[in-house]
Amino acid sequence: MYIIIEGIDTAGKSTQIDILKQNYPDTIFTKEPGGTNLGIDIRNMVLNGYTKSNLAEMFLFLADRAEHIDKIIKQNSDKTVVSDRGFLSGIAYAKIDIKSAISLNLLALDNALPSKIIILTLSKEILEQRLSNKKHDLIESRGIEYLLDIQNRMLKAIELINQQNNKKIDTLIIDASQNIKIIANQIDNFIKN
Amino acid sequence: MYIIIEGIDTAGKSTQIDILKQNYPDTIFTKEPGGTNLGIDIRNMVLNGYTKSNLAEMFLFLADRAEHIDKIIKQNSDKTVVSDRGFLSGIAYAKIDIKSAISLNLLALDNALPSKIIILTLSKEILEQRLSNKKHDLIESRGIEYLLDIQNRMLKAIELINQQNNKKIDTLIIDASQNIKIIANQIDNFIKN
Repeated sequence: MYIIIEGIDTAGKSTQIDILKQNYPDTIFTKEPGGTNLGIDIRNMVLNGYTKSNLAEMFLFLADRAEHIDKIIKQNSDKTVVSDRGFLSGIAYAKIDIKSAISLNLLALDNALPSKIIILTLSKEILEQRLSNKKHDLIESRGIEYLLDIQNRMLKAIELINQQNNKKIDTLIIDASQNIKIIANQIDNFIKN
Repeated sequence: MYIIIEGIDTAGKSTQIDILKQNYPDTIFTKEPGGTNLGIDIRNMVLNGYTKSNLAEMFLFLADRAEHIDKIIKQNSDKTVVSDRGFLSGIAYAKIDIKSAISLNLLALDNALPSKIIILTLSKEILEQRLSNKKHDLIESRGIEYLLDIQNRMLKAIELINQQNNKKIDTLIIDASQNIKIIANQIDNFIKN
């Protein structure tokens, strides 16, 4: 079972993944970008501002995704694999129209769609509060409106994909302003059912 | 003016580019992949067999293409730029259906289509003869049928692109079994007119 956890920065993905690691010791934990050797190089290239081209950046992330699917997801299709981010982030952060972004990312997935998707969401108020408490990194510094737009694109993307697919992807959208343990319970129930 | 020179290995691209370099000293000569710093890294990644995924490889080459368009082609739109390979190779070598390959490569070009395309072509007999005289590299070792298929895909791609575009891209298809000087003259006339 391939599960992805999505959400903008400060939504609490890392905290929840740490809890899952304790509760699911036989599960494989991975991430995008950077879940493979190629992905680590790609992640470094992009984060170091190695390219100024939005398109080049997008294709690099798609290469990371295709490699990750090939090397990690397909090789472990008999196990439970939890990925910190996946194709929804790919779609949401791509600087092209959402429909093109969806079709490119589905191509990179090569039919290996996740069985379950968890999306941690934040309201504008909570996001502002959390960002003000945190040292901003490259992406966060692009602003609150930017991050909310990314979150909206994630939600819109899953809606569009479920419309066009015969089988809907089982999706849990969580209000990430809730207590950490409550969120962890919601995720636990979702994975087990 | 942006000009690309295409053709399978042993068709004589390098020889013709060397002649152009002597005759057109003010022209910028570049190549794909590897015409930028990012492209050099990508080229090394792929040629060293860093990825086994056909899709990851394709997306890496598309990233190289997008970067090259952004950094070299668009920055020099007032000059003559000759590129050793371009999007036709991208389409021909991609291991997906030709129409998807075309739309991905046009996306990477970001509207910067070449003004002129030169394609050096070889018959099966001449290709066999040339390959038997040369140390085979990674791509050549995939066989004669493979290279002829790539050549056919290049020709098919330009046909399909010209069908769907209002304005045909000015294209010169050369029989590369001819004498080097005759080919050089054909290219020279084509560029000047």
